[in-house]
Amino acid sequence: MEWPTTYERKIRYSDCDPQGIVFNGNYFTYMDDAVTDYFEALGSTWEELHAGGHDIVLAHVEVDFRSSARLGETLVTGVRAINFGNTSITYQLQAWDQATGRLVIEATKVQVVVDVSTLQKRPVPTELIDAIERLQGGPITRRAPR
Amino acid sequence: MEWPTTYERKIRYSDCDPQGIVFNGNYFTYMDDAVTDYFEALGSTWEELHAGGHDIVLAHVEVDFRSSARLGETLVTGVRAINFGNTSITYQLQAWDQATGRLVIEATKVQVVVDVSTLQKRPVPTELIDAIERLQGGPITRRAPR
Amino acid sequence: MEWPTTYERKIRYSDCDPQGIVFNGNYFTYMDDAVTDYFEALGSTWEELHAGGHDIVLAHVEVDFRSSARLGETLVTGVRAINFGNTSITYQLQAWDQATGRLVIEATKVQVVVDVSTLQKRPVPTELIDAIERLQGGPITRRAPR
Amino acid sequence: MEWPTTYERKIRYSDCDPQGIVFNGNYFTYMDDAVTDYFEALGSTWEELHAGGHDIVLAHVEVDFRSSARLGETLVTGVRAINFGNTSITYQLQAWDQATGRLVIEATKVQVVVDVSTLQKRPVPTELIDAIERLQGGPITRRAPR
Repeated sequence: MEWPTTYERKIRYSDCDPQGIVFNGNYFTYMDDAVTDYFEALGSTWEELHAGGHDIVLAHVEVDFRSSARLGETLVTGVRAINFGNTSITYQLQAWDQATGRLVIEATKVQVVVDVSTLQKRPVPTELIDAIERLQGGPITRRAPR
Repeated sequence: MEWPTTYERKIRYSDCDPQGIVFNGNYFTYMDDAVTDYFEALGSTWEELHAGGHDIVLAHVEVDFRSSARLGETLVTGVRAINFGNTSITYQLQAWDQATGRLVIEATKVQVVVDVSTLQKRPVPTELIDAIERLQGGPITRRAPR
Repeated sequence: MEWPTTYERKIRYSDCDPQGIVFNGNYFTYMDDAVTDYFEALGSTWEELHAGGHDIVLAHVEVDFRSSARLGETLVTGVRAINFGNTSITYQLQAWDQATGRLVIEATKVQVVVDVSTLQKRPVPTELIDAIERLQGGPITRRAPR
Repeated sequence: MEWPTTYERKIRYSDCDPQGIVFNGNYFTYMDDAVTDYFEALGSTWEELHAGGHDIVLAHVEVDFRSSARLGETLVTGVRAINFGNTSITYQLQAWDQATGRLVIEATKVQVVVDVSTLQKRPVPTELIDAIERLQGGPITRRAPR
């Protein structure tokens, strides 16, 4: 499957640590940016749901570090939804060096839908499931989270 | 004069760039933290003024870089108010290596008092001037800003 | 079991996002700082091994977000080794609000020992295992990683 | 005069503070990125000088804050050299909201040329002056720094 959205970031001096590689904590910021761009690609759906009292919170992140991104490289991060639980959405992410395709990280993020006032978990709204499947061009598995 | 408040920060791997020295942009974050601690030392005065409709915005920063802070050093940043304009407060800051006293940066920050709703400039409240002079143990010059 | 080392961080304005809570990517920086302090507590052992040609790389991070740290809170992060694989060390981390003990994140980090020149995996040196068990005051499980 | 190089940055969630505006310390990172891009536009000149024993260090930064960049805006930062001292180069920077042109910051940065080994100040190399004037399409004033 293709990546429905990708996020590009030129690696800067301020991204790198004394080893001349991206400081590990920074990948989590890039992943947040990448998921934000994914949500923007959903268009108005999320804003409408948010206005209607839903919010989304980050519940879990899991990352495997495959290689190090370096100064001067451009890191591309792809995002796709891979599962709907009752109240959760699971995403797969990969980041790679744009020039060579060398894999840098592989990651999984789990978001949970909550009521914006009570912060209690809520079922993933049907409109959001529809918008995601429309963006990705096909159905996504539904199973209970781990 | 002594520094009425100082802010200590152990320099971490994530603070340093590929040269093994603190990335220059980070000093501005440390200076913000240092001024926050200075305001906390003023006690309830600022909170009361804020509740009464005043806000403070950063207007100007000026920094001279004297040496580089390095991994493993603890950087100490001192803050003191040095002048009141009609609507502004000017602070002097210095940061040095705790172990050796080696000067790292010298800086000036200018804050402006505004109305929290209109963002129009407002005279520095007398209560704030009093609290600052109490903290610093003496009178502070008053002259028009540059 | 107690935490052999803990890392305290006062949450600052620069740590927080527009929701007034710690930006999620920042927790990974705090965890890196916390593991650095853990290694410092091991004393000279790691420096000697590093001088002898070993290095350590981060291989995997996994985080569950339990609540949000907020402006003004002090976040405490505890670290302990929980398993040795042949070439890997697994750590458990928890971070909580200092004032209330409210759990903020739970995490697992996996480091791999490599040859500093070839970056090939190397068995965890016996001296490092000894130093860790000495710091933690008892034996740590040994099983193959996932 | 036009800006010889500009640096664009989409403002992200991780850039903003609890007021929903860019945290002030972040502008200094953007300015560093912008100057890096300016140097890349100089082509091989700088790399050759660096290989020949010159280095450049940041000596002074001065910023006026004119308005706040906000989530969702794209901030554009322009850089140009405005003066050569004997051993220094002074740059002017401005950053503005791409959509509206609203000015966000105005800044001055001063770099000093040093010997890469001794860190003693060195005259700005003629080749660097030439490359900068070529990039900017005209002569730049030369006067002693303040």
